[in-house]
Amino acid sequence: MESGLKPMDAEQLRECGHKMVDFIADYYKTIETIPVLSQVEPGYLHKLLPDSAPTQPESFQSVLDDVKAKILPGVTHWQSPNYFAYYPSNSSIAGFLGEMLSAGVNIVGFSWITSPAATELEMIVLDWLGKMLKLPEDFLSSGQGGGVIQGTASEAVLVVLLAARDKVLGRVGKNSLEKLVVYASDQTHSALQKACQIAGIHPQNFRVLKADSSTNYALSPDLLSETISHDVDMGWVPFFLCATVGTTSSTAIDPLLPLGKIAKKNGIWFHVDAAYAGSACICPEYRHYLDGVEEADSFNMNAHKWLLTNFDCSALWVKDRNALIQSLSTNPEFLKNKASQANMVVDYKDWQIPLGRRFRSLKLWMVLRLYGLENLQCYIKNHIDLAKYFEGLVAGDSRFEVVSPRIFSLVCFRLLPPDDNEDVGNKLNHDLLDAVNSTGRAFISHTVLSGKYILRFAIGAPLTEERHVAAAWKILQDEASALIGVP
Amino acid sequence: MESGLKPMDAEQLRECGHKMVDFIADYYKTIETIPVLSQVEPGYLHKLLPDSAPTQPESFQSVLDDVKAKILPGVTHWQSPNYFAYYPSNSSIAGFLGEMLSAGVNIVGFSWITSPAATELEMIVLDWLGKMLKLPEDFLSSGQGGGVIQGTASEAVLVVLLAARDKVLGRVGKNSLEKLVVYASDQTHSALQKACQIAGIHPQNFRVLKADSSTNYALSPDLLSETISHDVDMGWVPFFLCATVGTTSSTAIDPLLPLGKIAKKNGIWFHVDAAYAGSACICPEYRHYLDGVEEADSFNMNAHKWLLTNFDCSALWVKDRNALIQSLSTNPEFLKNKASQANMVVDYKDWQIPLGRRFRSLKLWMVLRLYGLENLQCYIKNHIDLAKYFEGLVAGDSRFEVVSPRIFSLVCFRLLPPDDNEDVGNKLNHDLLDAVNSTGRAFISHTVLSGKYILRFAIGAPLTEERHVAAAWKILQDEASALIGVP
Repeated sequence: MESGLKPMDAEQLRECGHKMVDFIADYYKTIETIPVLSQVEPGYLHKLLPDSAPTQPESFQSVLDDVKAKILPGVTHWQSPNYFAYYPSNSSIAGFLGEMLSAGVNIVGFSWITSPAATELEMIVLDWLGKMLKLPEDFLSSGQGGGVIQGTASEAVLVVLLAARDKVLGRVGKNSLEKLVVYASDQTHSALQKACQIAGIHPQNFRVLKADSSTNYALSPDLLSETISHDVDMGWVPFFLCATVGTTSSTAIDPLLPLGKIAKKNGIWFHVDAAYAGSACICPEYRHYLDGVEEADSFNMNAHKWLLTNFDCSALWVKDRNALIQSLSTNPEFLKNKASQANMVVDYKDWQIPLGRRFRSLKLWMVLRLYGLENLQCYIKNHIDLAKYFEGLVAGDSRFEVVSPRIFSLVCFRLLPPDDNEDVGNKLNHDLLDAVNSTGRAFISHTVLSGKYILRFAIGAPLTEERHVAAAWKILQDEASALIGVP
Repeated sequence: MESGLKPMDAEQLRECGHKMVDFIADYYKTIETIPVLSQVEPGYLHKLLPDSAPTQPESFQSVLDDVKAKILPGVTHWQSPNYFAYYPSNSSIAGFLGEMLSAGVNIVGFSWITSPAATELEMIVLDWLGKMLKLPEDFLSSGQGGGVIQGTASEAVLVVLLAARDKVLGRVGKNSLEKLVVYASDQTHSALQKACQIAGIHPQNFRVLKADSSTNYALSPDLLSETISHDVDMGWVPFFLCATVGTTSSTAIDPLLPLGKIAKKNGIWFHVDAAYAGSACICPEYRHYLDGVEEADSFNMNAHKWLLTNFDCSALWVKDRNALIQSLSTNPEFLKNKASQANMVVDYKDWQIPLGRRFRSLKLWMVLRLYGLENLQCYIKNHIDLAKYFEGLVAGDSRFEVVSPRIFSLVCFRLLPPDDNEDVGNKLNHDLLDAVNSTGRAFISHTVLSGKYILRFAIGAPLTEERHVAAAWKILQDEASALIGVP
């Protein structure tokens, strides 16, 4: 059958689909034992694959064999329980099933008419998730706002930056682009810098405000206020503020309420990026970190990070959907249809950069239904408990220090520099990271805070249990001993 | 088991995965019999689903039941053999398997290190596809260029527009944005207009050059040349030209060679959009439509349209990858790693808008291997033959006319206006479209060419056979008879 695979055929799809399910299930059975960080050399795959596509079809089995022998060794296993780098990017059974179904029907939901269910389910599940996060009502679809699934937080911040840009240009004149100013702390994700580049905001018009250990790397409202006043006096036009709940380096939390009030007073679009930590805010005990979100114009969290929804699924809510639509809509003849022309429906093509879009709400819907709110809260809390456990382990070894306060499931720590020599300390921690990652038995990443090289231990893979955290700590201790000796 | 679904568990994934495969295979068994265009009313789903997410988990079976009863009626079935609207968006067995595998491993391949295989396989299969299209060597990864998978053609044209913008601003000064001018015919996809909006190019700086039936809606090199000369005389800075091979309205083909020479002479970035028709150019007899692509700076085709690769998979090649990287790179501390810092690898995050990216090369690789070049060529030719067949049917009914020359698998046609009254004719064709689509037995779309309302019959769904084309034509004839009587 296989060499005669048709483009589409129900029974062939069934047969191959079952094989692929088994292949993936078997992958998860052994995932714990394979190197989490791929240990291949650059260019490895080029040597293993032919230079051109085959003229004749090959068998499915030969492709699966190649996946196993040639592809998987080059994969860094984000779903491994030994994955502690960057931030998690969850897969789950429910998310995987949703991706399968979405790929199965393979619709392109740019306008309502091209699959009404895709648009309507997305509005509904974003309302569900918005309520789980206790977002203010004006972010829900019943009013002037609403939620939309973007690919990534980068796209989320870009589309709201564009909406804000075009709104302010409408007020101050379209030739004033060079006067527009953006504000954020130096802990803000690089996605904002990239969005500015794309939107034509000059780098020098991006006020990167310093945050340091005195505020636990949160943006100071006083500093923001002073900077805006000075800019206004100089004739600049402040128009966009991005605050973060859970920064990428250290999970710092910008104080939303005072920042939002400053933004409002100055007519500035206020965006809140909670890409990672947003998931934790479905738990009552962490929700207070979002206090002040009622002052925001837009709010973003990535369900694909820590909420069991396969990549990509970045949830964005706005209070004024028309601002997005004003900036991003096009209305070519070939897409006109009754429902759109009558303004009876949402066409998500006008809320995003691309035209086409996948049926991503299916996976989020399946995650929320198949796990339910309480299980999702337990899932988050369990990871945070594991992070507390790791924090305790670090604190119990005098060679190490926890660097900034642990808030969620990320622990920032380092080997203490010998003789307070920060340069030597930085080199040492760099070498420790390298040594640990080279074992293939744990994968961690790093950042730099106030000039110090810091190790990041981010817990959040669905399969991670206490024993994996303990084992990773053992590796860290052993490699540290190899570098500087036992305590 | 199901109410106790774990976040991830190999055996639970296996059990549910098999059920989902059967569900999707069964979907394809009945797809032909269900209405291709969803017939639901706006807001239908809101009435069927609860207002908030469940607190406790629900069973997988109850979700599948809801998919069947509540979601599928709101789906417009792009994979139905009766789908002839817009352009196709192919699913295939191979593409579906690739999506499954990608969702299964669920990696995020922004940098080489985060999954070397994801980056390297993408470079390799884009080289394969580039060779299948006989692209000039400087688009391949061995030189200064290379290919990358974007989500959509909209993102492809946006990233090259940004690269071109920043390149020319580097030459003429960063405050010259308002002087930059873009060129394309009025048949160009609205994605270019949107890219200009995003990049801060003023609408009046986008020269929308008229194309009409005298050139079969292709852009005239003379008109381009004159317009550029005039702009240069007036102090404008021409910097970007987009040509299309296979426009969305009518598959018009801009003459790449003369256009490219004009672009080169004027130092303009030349982008070729072959989103739909690019797939046909893997056949020797259609490759000549790409003649002149050697003059282009960038070339794009959507493997997710007509090359059996599930959405999304938009292939973009550039000759100068550094131009992209200059525009789109960021280098935050938390992403630094040995391989990237040593400049030994490609980091695709710097070739695209988002940071995160899925392992999309898997599905393209599986399509190319499981079908092979010859089968893919046959697949394309079969659709084109079916379009010729449909063209013949239209020509045989004196009430209709074929409007612009059929080149690939799209037929543009209409009911002739009674008494040469174009207004009445437009209304008539609009009503015919509505009547046909309301049957649920075929889905076609429309465009407007030179003020005439035109019906578009685009063949390209993997399951479409001659009998489906014949049946759709019968519906068109019957509905026409109901509107204006038998011939």
